[in-house]
Amino acid sequence: MDLNADLGEGFGVWRLGDDEALLDLVTSANVACGFHAGDPSTMRRVCAAAAERGVAVGAQVGYRDLAGFGRRHIAYDFAELRDEVLYQLGALNAFCRPYRTRVRYLKPHGALYHAAACEELPAAAVVAAVDDYDRDLPVLCPPGSVLAQLAQGAGLRVVAEGFADRNYLPNGQLVPRTSPDALVTEPPEVARRAVRMATERTVVAVDGSVIPCVVDSICLHGDSPGAVAAAELVRATLIDAGVTPTPFN
Amino acid sequence: MDLNADLGEGFGVWRLGDDEALLDLVTSANVACGFHAGDPSTMRRVCAAAAERGVAVGAQVGYRDLAGFGRRHIAYDFAELRDEVLYQLGALNAFCRPYRTRVRYLKPHGALYHAAACEELPAAAVVAAVDDYDRDLPVLCPPGSVLAQLAQGAGLRVVAEGFADRNYLPNGQLVPRTSPDALVTEPPEVARRAVRMATERTVVAVDGSVIPCVVDSICLHGDSPGAVAAAELVRATLIDAGVTPTPFN
Amino acid sequence: MDLNADLGEGFGVWRLGDDEALLDLVTSANVACGFHAGDPSTMRRVCAAAAERGVAVGAQVGYRDLAGFGRRHIAYDFAELRDEVLYQLGALNAFCRPYRTRVRYLKPHGALYHAAACEELPAAAVVAAVDDYDRDLPVLCPPGSVLAQLAQGAGLRVVAEGFADRNYLPNGQLVPRTSPDALVTEPPEVARRAVRMATERTVVAVDGSVIPCVVDSICLHGDSPGAVAAAELVRATLIDAGVTPTPFN
Amino acid sequence: MDLNADLGEGFGVWRLGDDEALLDLVTSANVACGFHAGDPSTMRRVCAAAAERGVAVGAQVGYRDLAGFGRRHIAYDFAELRDEVLYQLGALNAFCRPYRTRVRYLKPHGALYHAAACEELPAAAVVAAVDDYDRDLPVLCPPGSVLAQLAQGAGLRVVAEGFADRNYLPNGQLVPRTSPDALVTEPPEVARRAVRMATERTVVAVDGSVIPCVVDSICLHGDSPGAVAAAELVRATLIDAGVTPTPFN
Repeated sequence: MDLNADLGEGFGVWRLGDDEALLDLVTSANVACGFHAGDPSTMRRVCAAAAERGVAVGAQVGYRDLAGFGRRHIAYDFAELRDEVLYQLGALNAFCRPYRTRVRYLKPHGALYHAAACEELPAAAVVAAVDDYDRDLPVLCPPGSVLAQLAQGAGLRVVAEGFADRNYLPNGQLVPRTSPDALVTEPPEVARRAVRMATERTVVAVDGSVIPCVVDSICLHGDSPGAVAAAELVRATLIDAGVTPTPFN
Repeated sequence: MDLNADLGEGFGVWRLGDDEALLDLVTSANVACGFHAGDPSTMRRVCAAAAERGVAVGAQVGYRDLAGFGRRHIAYDFAELRDEVLYQLGALNAFCRPYRTRVRYLKPHGALYHAAACEELPAAAVVAAVDDYDRDLPVLCPPGSVLAQLAQGAGLRVVAEGFADRNYLPNGQLVPRTSPDALVTEPPEVARRAVRMATERTVVAVDGSVIPCVVDSICLHGDSPGAVAAAELVRATLIDAGVTPTPFN
Repeated sequence: MDLNADLGEGFGVWRLGDDEALLDLVTSANVACGFHAGDPSTMRRVCAAAAERGVAVGAQVGYRDLAGFGRRHIAYDFAELRDEVLYQLGALNAFCRPYRTRVRYLKPHGALYHAAACEELPAAAVVAAVDDYDRDLPVLCPPGSVLAQLAQGAGLRVVAEGFADRNYLPNGQLVPRTSPDALVTEPPEVARRAVRMATERTVVAVDGSVIPCVVDSICLHGDSPGAVAAAELVRATLIDAGVTPTPFN
Repeated sequence: MDLNADLGEGFGVWRLGDDEALLDLVTSANVACGFHAGDPSTMRRVCAAAAERGVAVGAQVGYRDLAGFGRRHIAYDFAELRDEVLYQLGALNAFCRPYRTRVRYLKPHGALYHAAACEELPAAAVVAAVDDYDRDLPVLCPPGSVLAQLAQGAGLRVVAEGFADRNYLPNGQLVPRTSPDALVTEPPEVARRAVRMATERTVVAVDGSVIPCVVDSICLHGDSPGAVAAAELVRATLIDAGVTPTPFN
């Protein structure tokens, strides 16, 4: 099982989350590429530290919106969005080169993640950017999402992502964040859910039913208080259960 | 002799210069990379049109300053500037990939061009970025400049640039823009100077003396009224004189 | 009848439209405030020129999106959008002060104009910003729009805007821009429609029916080729018909 | 004696320093205006909290450089810089209006603070902006600086600022930050120096000599670990010594 987290999400003097600590826990680093967060020197620092630890670097591409941290939907047209994504892919890859590595996958961020999961235009724009950049680049996204479908349809590799700290509906979709039971907050419970995802390929839905959850990577969150400790527990519990965190490629 | 021009210097809805017309005249296109100008879709358009015509794409890297068009000096520290340049190199290269080409050289823009020509820190930052990105990437800059010296010292290839529409001091440096005789404005005179640079490897300095001017590329300007017509005259006059415009590599 | 136009929509080195020419034709200048366009020195220049001519300065507030020129919808939350609008109001007013005037009205730009015309959240955010800034500031918007309704409900003054160069549906709404007959392109026809709006308070809808069109201000467009000539014709034709262009307050 | 601190220096999702805690300690709040830091909703929050506590709001104006936090010098020309400062003054004032207050003073930030203290062009640009905006607005800056001189020469009020946590040279200037003894780091020592500034109008220079230090406001820093505790100690020690912190106007 791969473990991924969002990293390098500061900008200039501002920091967010504990990149160094998370890099010791994950196998894949979703590195912000400068549009929603991530200045060039932060990008370099994270790429260098990831390469040193054998953590795979992924392009965490987002909307051009530092003020909104890429969390507000922007109604791009197809070509503009494709080109914004392509720009970010190339920019991040430049910081992999001095450390003899390269961008290994793409994961959309924030509002783009959600839009590409359920809408055709943004999903197609992301797929077109990967198609332009490197057809061997996997796309990390929810299984069954519009993005997953379009990427597969275009012959790209999809890496399915699950969330141990989010509740799922019986239909396999996430409980919306606006719902009070969107999040699983107790670290031991999050860790148990991660183990179940990794070993049984299932998750306990919010109604108590056990549903399939076939994912290649589990997302750890690092930007809230206690996040690093929770991520450490997930990793340790997985290892105790015989699951070795490994990059998906 | 190579002919280069600054291209793709619009941003979003705004345009500057006539990219299409200039692309028919030059052999090397200095494409703005998004920091002083150049949105992703403009970058793609210019890269596509350049590839179609066999024009070499160069990274016209600038300071992060859309409001000032990269013309105001910014006192970056070394690492920040190196990383800003590296980011732009990678971003532009992403738009070369779908057209089966790549960034062929780097030319600094505006205040960075001037700073790197005469100051150690910005010159060293540009050199370090090229060194990180691709040691085979030539640097287009004034012969004898600090940037040229540091690039050569680092084992990088330097492509020497001359200006047919600028006056030179007897010591081989450009007459500063603040001086009333900085510019050569009559197109036929500009064209004659280009031919002299290409065939005799000399230029007539502002005091009337003939001095050496050994350059590999002549810069054409495209952002003033009449600029395209003047550039056409330079190109036609060069061809009449037996000089075929050719990319430097 | 008031005549308004979007002005100051350049940014830094980039220009859009002919501000000087339009300022001689309009009675109200919608000045871009820096978020979708409009750098501080451009704002000053337009405010100074408007004050000199007795043209009223209005705040043309937009989304924070230079790359998209404020034409892409951004899903702001209420408080963020209110504060973005308030910021722009204050910033523009600073450039009125040295010319002994002040911001006289607000008009949303681009995607915000459209969103506030038909959606509650952006309309309420604009109203809240005006309420915070100056309850005597009129809001320029389509009559009957959600923004008009919320502004009136909050006790603010609404100035109704019409478009002589846009076709109207029989229900009084504009033909969407995506439709082939959205625009009226022949200048003499545009001028005739302006006269009808000003004198008969009606417009000929796209189906040929004559419908009421009670507006206080007609918008002239200045950013397309021939735009200034067309605006001149509208103004001249209005004057010939006995309608003197006058600021609405 | 007035106590001032830099506040509202986050941007979007990013935070810097503990605004709430510092607002309980200072009498003047230097609020970032959006160019080096400070999004509109943060500006509103700080203005509201300051107004509630009777803390004076000042415009902490900076260079347009979020990526560099306004700490890199930018070689603006005079008119551009004047207009950038004027823009920020107006923008901040908009957030004072709903809380029935207004901007009470201006303090330049970072590289602009330093440039305006020792160079004519940036100092004159700041003075021109205040002159355009409101000639009753005091300028907070080092006594004897170029900015202080030009402001006084233009008939503006200058409020002299001192730093209890910085060492001074015998000539009354600050020990440059590049020097190892630039900072006074022990909170009790900082507090003692603040009391001496407030009561004896002197400071012990870095060579041990006692020199005059006639200031109206002492700057507290809030962005380092332990900063709030240190600021609390300064305030408490001043009160113990009979000095009541009071806004300078």
